Amino acid sequence: MRATLIYGAGDVRVEDVPDPHVQQPTDAVVRVVVSCVCGSDLWPYASRPATEDADRIGHEFLGVVEETGSQVSGLEPGDLVVAPFVWSDNTCDFCSEGLQTSCRNGGFWGADGVDGGQGEAVRVPQAQGTLVKLPVGEDSALLPSLLTLSDVFPTGHHCAVRAGVGERTTVTVIGDGAVGLSAVLAARRLGAERIVLMGRHADRTDLGRAFGATDVVTERGEEGVEKVRELTGGDGTHTVLECVGLEQAVNTAFGVVRDGGTVSRVGAPQYEQVSMGFPQFFKNITLTGGVAPARAYIEELLPDILEGRVEPGRVFDRTVGLDEVPDGYRAMADRQALKVLIRP
Amino acid sequence: MRATLIYGAGDVRVEDVPDPHVQQPTDAVVRVVVSCVCGSDLWPYASRPATEDADRIGHEFLGVVEETGSQVSGLEPGDLVVAPFVWSDNTCDFCSEGLQTSCRNGGFWGADGVDGGQGEAVRVPQAQGTLVKLPVGEDSALLPSLLTLSDVFPTGHHCAVRAGVGERTTVTVIGDGAVGLSAVLAARRLGAERIVLMGRHADRTDLGRAFGATDVVTERGEEGVEKVRELTGGDGTHTVLECVGLEQAVNTAFGVVRDGGTVSRVGAPQYEQVSMGFPQFFKNITLTGGVAPARAYIEELLPDILEGRVEPGRVFDRTVGLDEVPDGYRAMADRQALKVLIRP
Repeated sequence: MRATLIYGAGDVRVEDVPDPHVQQPTDAVVRVVVSCVCGSDLWPYASRPATEDADRIGHEFLGVVEETGSQVSGLEPGDLVVAPFVWSDNTCDFCSEGLQTSCRNGGFWGADGVDGGQGEAVRVPQAQGTLVKLPVGEDSALLPSLLTLSDVFPTGHHCAVRAGVGERTTVTVIGDGAVGLSAVLAARRLGAERIVLMGRHADRTDLGRAFGATDVVTERGEEGVEKVRELTGGDGTHTVLECVGLEQAVNTAFGVVRDGGTVSRVGAPQYEQVSMGFPQFFKNITLTGGVAPARAYIEELLPDILEGRVEPGRVFDRTVGLDEVPDGYRAMADRQALKVLIRP
Repeated sequence: MRATLIYGAGDVRVEDVPDPHVQQPTDAVVRVVVSCVCGSDLWPYASRPATEDADRIGHEFLGVVEETGSQVSGLEPGDLVVAPFVWSDNTCDFCSEGLQTSCRNGGFWGADGVDGGQGEAVRVPQAQGTLVKLPVGEDSALLPSLLTLSDVFPTGHHCAVRAGVGERTTVTVIGDGAVGLSAVLAARRLGAERIVLMGRHADRTDLGRAFGATDVVTERGEEGVEKVRELTGGDGTHTVLECVGLEQAVNTAFGVVRDGGTVSRVGAPQYEQVSMGFPQFFKNITLTGGVAPARAYIEELLPDILEGRVEPGRVFDRTVGLDEVPDGYRAMADRQALKVLIRP
């Protein structure tokens, strides 16, 4: 089959790879119907050292079950399924607590002999625990929104949940990428009435407003902090959803969070340390969040998509075929596309 | 009157200062019956630059109301009261939320013309919001435990509450100082059944066991982390109460916290940054805690002291008169005393 490989920074190629087959009795093979490029794929796309030994890439996909192992029940060939961005058994103690990203028998797409999601098909380990059946056909217009259940929508949701967003909390969302916009959508869905979106790209912040942002702050750094403080009577917001992953964004978060408030982060950290010294201590600031256990949230988020109450798939603004995946990466890296959908 | 001043590292003196009087209608004057030295007083005692311009010091006291301003109701001369370590109006929005340390009209003992607690008397601003009446006489044997309501017991409690300690959470407490031991007591009081105390001083960890610690780990750093992991099947504990304030202790906390768990800190941070990069992100670790709004917890903790269910005052292992306060500081700095009670 054809699949995407990354050879180094700026060097993504679509090549022939071995066809996937069931190897373990807990495996399934899924033919990919839609996949996409993640903002986090752009980090290796920006910095991976060039080698001859390429890595498979892609961790968001939705497709049709083609084959299942003998220990997989509840799934049959022909089922349309979505896969969260980490595979997991969904039965261990961590999974039972809703932390499938720490599953005792789980792992990552594109690593350790497991296929990536940006290809024609994927061998899915722990298929019964990982895959969630979708009650629509593969021609459904809902597919883009359903695909966001792989990662970006549950990631925004995780950010908001960890922050404790609710009806009584004001919210700042930092970042107008697909995750930031999903966090806006998730915060609104959880009842937040005041959502300040910090972002500089008008087309993206416009979508943010459609998703529920009540205010947009285009300034960055100290100026942006001042602006959010102005909007909140000097106090900042109860919760801050940090959806970038850069130290500067975390510092902005600390600048706009209200005393006693929570900064929740889901941007993969491109930093090792953060400022959590006396100022944050004295204000009782909590720093939480982390990699989102998407699997934990799919059943909760699915009905709102099926019934049209939310349209997280609006973050996709470009669609490519598999051979055009390198163009998709370039478009996202150059910020010409917000999020690229792949139809293999 | 006589009161304690700090002139520089290692230089604490008891001197004559002006007698306190009601200055604002919201003030009261309290004659101090018992006060004490805090672990956090040892930071300036270790490092304050020497100047001729001394600072008043001490922020934990319990005493008798001598005089009240015209706007103070609910308090009368003769009332025995305890003061939390930050004064506050107890009516603003932050106070109403239980964050009296961020009170819009509050402040600190020993700063901005307000007396410190280690003296014969104190002018108490925002007296009605700050002071809590105690239903015992000034000769009560409960006074040491009641004095801990100023700071050390609510600080341990805050640490445990912020961490989410409950019946189903395992706990590691880092630090066998008075705050760490109070955190053990608070965690046990909140229902924790497994409490690992990390500390090296046998007399202190023995008190920790009496307070509810089920395991004691004397090793530090990587060795200590290994030991706690061994005790918890390799996983670490759901919550970690960091009661030291050094970067090394925070790193130990990250080493022993279970995936998805919470590190809560109440040790005044002697660091500016902490490691909250990819490893903590990937494990969904929360870092919370901060300066404890002791006032928020006094009514909740008081009955357990009055009815003898907890004895937080056991952290006091030495009593001095006011003139011996410099000896008290030395004893605590040299770790010859755990916590020093002062009877002016």
